[in-house]
Amino acid sequence: MKVLVINSGSSSIKYQLIDMSDESVMVTGLVERIGEDMGSLTSKTFPGTDREVKTEIEKPIPTHGVGLEMSIDLICKGENAVCAMDEIDVVGHRVVAGGEKFNVPVVITEDMWPDLTETERLAPLHNPANLGGAKDATKLFPGVPQVLVFDTAFHQTIPPHAFMYALPYEYYEEDHIRRYGAHGTSHKYVANECARLMGKPVEEMNLITIHMGNGASMSAVKNGLCADTSMGLTPLEGLVMGTRSGDVDPAVHNYLAVNRGLDIAAIDNILHKESGLKGLCGMNDMRDIHAAVEKGDERAKLALNVQTYRTRKYIGSYMAVLGRVDAIVFTAGIGENDDIVRAETIEGLEPFGMKIDPEANGIRSKEARRISTADSDVAIWVIPTNEELAIAREAVALIK
Amino acid sequence: MKVLVINSGSSSIKYQLIDMSDESVMVTGLVERIGEDMGSLTSKTFPGTDREVKTEIEKPIPTHGVGLEMSIDLICKGENAVCAMDEIDVVGHRVVAGGEKFNVPVVITEDMWPDLTETERLAPLHNPANLGGAKDATKLFPGVPQVLVFDTAFHQTIPPHAFMYALPYEYYEEDHIRRYGAHGTSHKYVANECARLMGKPVEEMNLITIHMGNGASMSAVKNGLCADTSMGLTPLEGLVMGTRSGDVDPAVHNYLAVNRGLDIAAIDNILHKESGLKGLCGMNDMRDIHAAVEKGDERAKLALNVQTYRTRKYIGSYMAVLGRVDAIVFTAGIGENDDIVRAETIEGLEPFGMKIDPEANGIRSKEARRISTADSDVAIWVIPTNEELAIAREAVALIK
Repeated sequence: MKVLVINSGSSSIKYQLIDMSDESVMVTGLVERIGEDMGSLTSKTFPGTDREVKTEIEKPIPTHGVGLEMSIDLICKGENAVCAMDEIDVVGHRVVAGGEKFNVPVVITEDMWPDLTETERLAPLHNPANLGGAKDATKLFPGVPQVLVFDTAFHQTIPPHAFMYALPYEYYEEDHIRRYGAHGTSHKYVANECARLMGKPVEEMNLITIHMGNGASMSAVKNGLCADTSMGLTPLEGLVMGTRSGDVDPAVHNYLAVNRGLDIAAIDNILHKESGLKGLCGMNDMRDIHAAVEKGDERAKLALNVQTYRTRKYIGSYMAVLGRVDAIVFTAGIGENDDIVRAETIEGLEPFGMKIDPEANGIRSKEARRISTADSDVAIWVIPTNEELAIAREAVALIK
Repeated sequence: MKVLVINSGSSSIKYQLIDMSDESVMVTGLVERIGEDMGSLTSKTFPGTDREVKTEIEKPIPTHGVGLEMSIDLICKGENAVCAMDEIDVVGHRVVAGGEKFNVPVVITEDMWPDLTETERLAPLHNPANLGGAKDATKLFPGVPQVLVFDTAFHQTIPPHAFMYALPYEYYEEDHIRRYGAHGTSHKYVANECARLMGKPVEEMNLITIHMGNGASMSAVKNGLCADTSMGLTPLEGLVMGTRSGDVDPAVHNYLAVNRGLDIAAIDNILHKESGLKGLCGMNDMRDIHAAVEKGDERAKLALNVQTYRTRKYIGSYMAVLGRVDAIVFTAGIGENDDIVRAETIEGLEPFGMKIDPEANGIRSKEARRISTADSDVAIWVIPTNEELAIAREAVALIK
């Protein structure tokens, strides 16, 4: 069985073709700068094997639909084709927000679209692009089941006292305002991987999972199920991110409206796109920030300190949620690759049995690895996330 | 030396006359329902002694100025007068928000008013009334020093990584947007009391102080100094309060604007006045909520659970901030009187050495008392706050 997994972003498409007989990746690709003057498509067939072939195309890619068609042409036609179009059994799509209606993966049917469109407000930076990709694929693959896997599904076990905001109750009943979280596919994947690597059933494990990329969120996982997560109604709440503010005083909006004459849409845009690390120091790539810190840039240092301090506070709050923590898992771009952020995040948590081994932490690797000391009560892991594989598994499980 | 302490609220004035020779309360009073059809003034001279005299006046009180004049008449004139007006050496005022400019108590001078008026935006529910009281007192006591004691002053030791929001940096530089906190006078008072009661220098103690009344905030106190606090730019952020939301996803504003057509001022008003416990269950008095829970009201139970869960998460996050916690202190209306809230807040924190003794917790008292078990690593205390005495001490220290 072959599964095409699509993660359609605002100006990009990431995709993988996975052969589920051995869960191997047949093709991996990335379409970028859709709608800009010049776009690109980079693809690898059989990546990481001796049969690997890399293809790069530079040309204007006006729409997501065109980008997806180019990708499928590469997969199914021409000299590096790996399979015929009708060999693709199912297409799986990452969707950030499912709301309360979409709390498990679904095969798209035409009548779902009004409810799906409703979800776009819950993740305005992501859902429109995610669902647009699913629409494009429906046209390109008539008759092939299109499965939506929602990032929020894993968080549906969060209990009411953790998902309710202290807002007028009718906002929950009528407007469905509550904590939904995001990155759930990733949190679930690394939680299960951690349990497998530690040789324990995930149902017996309490974990804190930290997904930290350009977007960032944390989950408290109790006996394998999500008990709380840092993103909320939308992916704006919680940790300090590349350009997103994370938590702020909810009176900031009115303060900015009065002080700066900004309207609510402008403030929302600033909180999403001009805040976070970028707001604090003008940079949102952690590598640039580290380079600036090396050169003595005080605002870069402040940005790093704010970000790691806030993450550390969330670890503390999830300690209180879980009572006992078996492991902490770092994943995603920063979580997997940034030993400085990991070390500063855990700094000061030694009294709670969380000790990083600087040597193990310093090793760069694509593999899952434990980075805590032998005497650390809490195991600390770096586990590369694999949302594509997780989505493919969900898609196959659903259509079987 | 005699100090009149005034806490001027939106429709009320609380006051105390304190004889600083022995820190005894000579008069305590409360003016209520200012500006309504019928107001009231309740006053006690030498409260709690055998000389106690209670006076109650019911009549319309059109303005704060009239209310304050009535109060001073009771103190200084007529049959229950306790001192002449010229025996009052200094007047101390509680002010919720001082911003960055007012980080220590000050004696008011005329030229301060523009800067003082600026602070009103930081605590729109409180500062205008607080400062209005100071203006009235200046007129009534010409030549007597008027000291402002800011609730934010204790929080000025919070380091930048904890007070900065991940917002565009110019909002800090130009608009002074940062975490200021509130209830600082109370947090400082109970932290010092706790150290005194435990017989240790406060400089050697790490404490989590929980001020929980209709407004609610927490502080992480490290070596006697504030390291972090839950209220932020304004007193809206943080814990779930009577009518205030505390923390919410900062994208909620735009979501409500789009979904309900609300403007930013309306949303801000809802977050301040229609949210919190009231939003969740329609009640904002904890006694009503307990009574409703007893009768099986599920939303009242939800409100209680959300409130205590969020407080517990803050305890966890301050554990991470402090590394070692010597004591937790509950104070203010709910903190001092509500054993159910205290017990539910600490529930599940036993693995971190925090154990409540149900019997000690159940005792109602006006006295400071330890409510943790003998084998609890972390001492848990109920310590009645005394902001008036703290303000009087600051006022005297300043004019000396």
